[in-house]
Amino acid sequence: MIVYYNGKYMPKSDVAISPDDRGFLFADGIYEVVRVYEGHLFRLAEHLKRLETGVTALGIGGVDPAQIGEIVAGLIEQNQLGQGDATVYVQVTRGAAPRSHKFPPANTPPTIYGEPKRLNPLVSEPESGVGVLVVPDQRWARCDLKTTGLLANTIAHQRAFKAGAFEAIFCRDGMLMEGSHSSVMFVKNNTLLAPPLSNYILPSVTRQVVLELAAAAGIEVMLRPCREDELGEFQEALLVGTTVEVTPITSVDGRPIGGGKPGPVTRRLQAAFAEGVRRERKAR
Amino acid sequence: MIVYYNGKYMPKSDVAISPDDRGFLFADGIYEVVRVYEGHLFRLAEHLKRLETGVTALGIGGVDPAQIGEIVAGLIEQNQLGQGDATVYVQVTRGAAPRSHKFPPANTPPTIYGEPKRLNPLVSEPESGVGVLVVPDQRWARCDLKTTGLLANTIAHQRAFKAGAFEAIFCRDGMLMEGSHSSVMFVKNNTLLAPPLSNYILPSVTRQVVLELAAAAGIEVMLRPCREDELGEFQEALLVGTTVEVTPITSVDGRPIGGGKPGPVTRRLQAAFAEGVRRERKAR
Repeated sequence: MIVYYNGKYMPKSDVAISPDDRGFLFADGIYEVVRVYEGHLFRLAEHLKRLETGVTALGIGGVDPAQIGEIVAGLIEQNQLGQGDATVYVQVTRGAAPRSHKFPPANTPPTIYGEPKRLNPLVSEPESGVGVLVVPDQRWARCDLKTTGLLANTIAHQRAFKAGAFEAIFCRDGMLMEGSHSSVMFVKNNTLLAPPLSNYILPSVTRQVVLELAAAAGIEVMLRPCREDELGEFQEALLVGTTVEVTPITSVDGRPIGGGKPGPVTRRLQAAFAEGVRRERKAR
Repeated sequence: MIVYYNGKYMPKSDVAISPDDRGFLFADGIYEVVRVYEGHLFRLAEHLKRLETGVTALGIGGVDPAQIGEIVAGLIEQNQLGQGDATVYVQVTRGAAPRSHKFPPANTPPTIYGEPKRLNPLVSEPESGVGVLVVPDQRWARCDLKTTGLLANTIAHQRAFKAGAFEAIFCRDGMLMEGSHSSVMFVKNNTLLAPPLSNYILPSVTRQVVLELAAAAGIEVMLRPCREDELGEFQEALLVGTTVEVTPITSVDGRPIGGGKPGPVTRRLQAAFAEGVRRERKAR
């Protein structure tokens, strides 16, 4: 496989990350995962915008979002992934410098790494629905930044996996926030509920797409905190994200939600999402 | 410089961290920094114990603490750092595996990296004291584990540095917790106060040494939460840690503490610490 590393496309086996890389030493970096449908980079602009927000917030210099977009496209081309589904992972760190909590000089070049992956889209999960596990949110206070400091996320996901669940949902102070690597929404009184963005929630690209599609489809949308103790009152629950797209949640902590079957609002959103992807692919 | 990487001692420039390393992708790792005085690995057993606690908590397998101890000693020997002061940095990650929030198979070998550094001990700061900046604690809920997920720490430290301060002190819910890479203590009514260990505070090796030395010197010690709004009532404040050893804090947020001069309890602890190091070096 051909990857991108600091200015060059190369075989993955040729990449040598420095032990001084601040991504390795400090999780001092930002990443994005872009979904690619038949060569179409889905909502690339939104991903690049979020990446730019991230590097700006962290004060990582020398990153040109337009260039990152070209790298994403280049990786699809170089690996002949223009047919079928794929994702491209891009990570940017503050670069390599002798270990110090202090930031290195501003002219330290960032590390830029990109890797594409052929994706076998989920088939059974979006159809039958999945179970999730609610776990305490142990993450830091800047979950709105897509940093590589994901240990809490991996621990949560592993815990869910071992419990036989598909994803973990973080709960903070009684509020259901988001999944370990997806967003979560609920349906109550036929209204689509989404936890409002805050420093504890990633501004998910797919979340935004789904909210737009819901509004366009005439589904009531309400952004408001969603409490764990409301779970019994939700008619539906769903995961949304770059990989899962729109996937019904049919059980939480082993208890069925909405009768244990994907509900009508989720089904409408799945159809709208598939149609939206088709539309955007054709429009390019 | 000769470093250690996955079973071998080698020139640092030969190290090639995989872009699949979970340390690089997820901050899925633990580290330690051991202080070396004239070839004596200070409190090595305590560092190894904490490392073991960390890898056990994270479920990282294949790490033998005794072997890590040999690596630390080997790095000092190979780099002829047996005279003067040095530190050895050791990092252990969950290894390299295709990117997934799910943990890789249990038999995935961990990544083990070790690097020594000649240390020029602080001279002026322990003598004159330093200023610190209080910052909001944005870290995750497992600060008791010495993981490489240090972005909040580096951001805090950089903020302090830009404000002309030597270190940042994290404040959570009105309580002063610890520095970005050091521990903090205070003196009130001639009693040495230390924030009690919790999931928000690292069990610092130097903190434990200083508490032992204080008790042995007949200084009253109290472990209790230290409130930010008590700062005006503290007679002294001090940083303790592997690199700073015992360093007086003479100002907080630009306001002098204890008259802006190192106080008598701090001075006694500095002397006791130096003597403790001498004693342990001779006893080896």
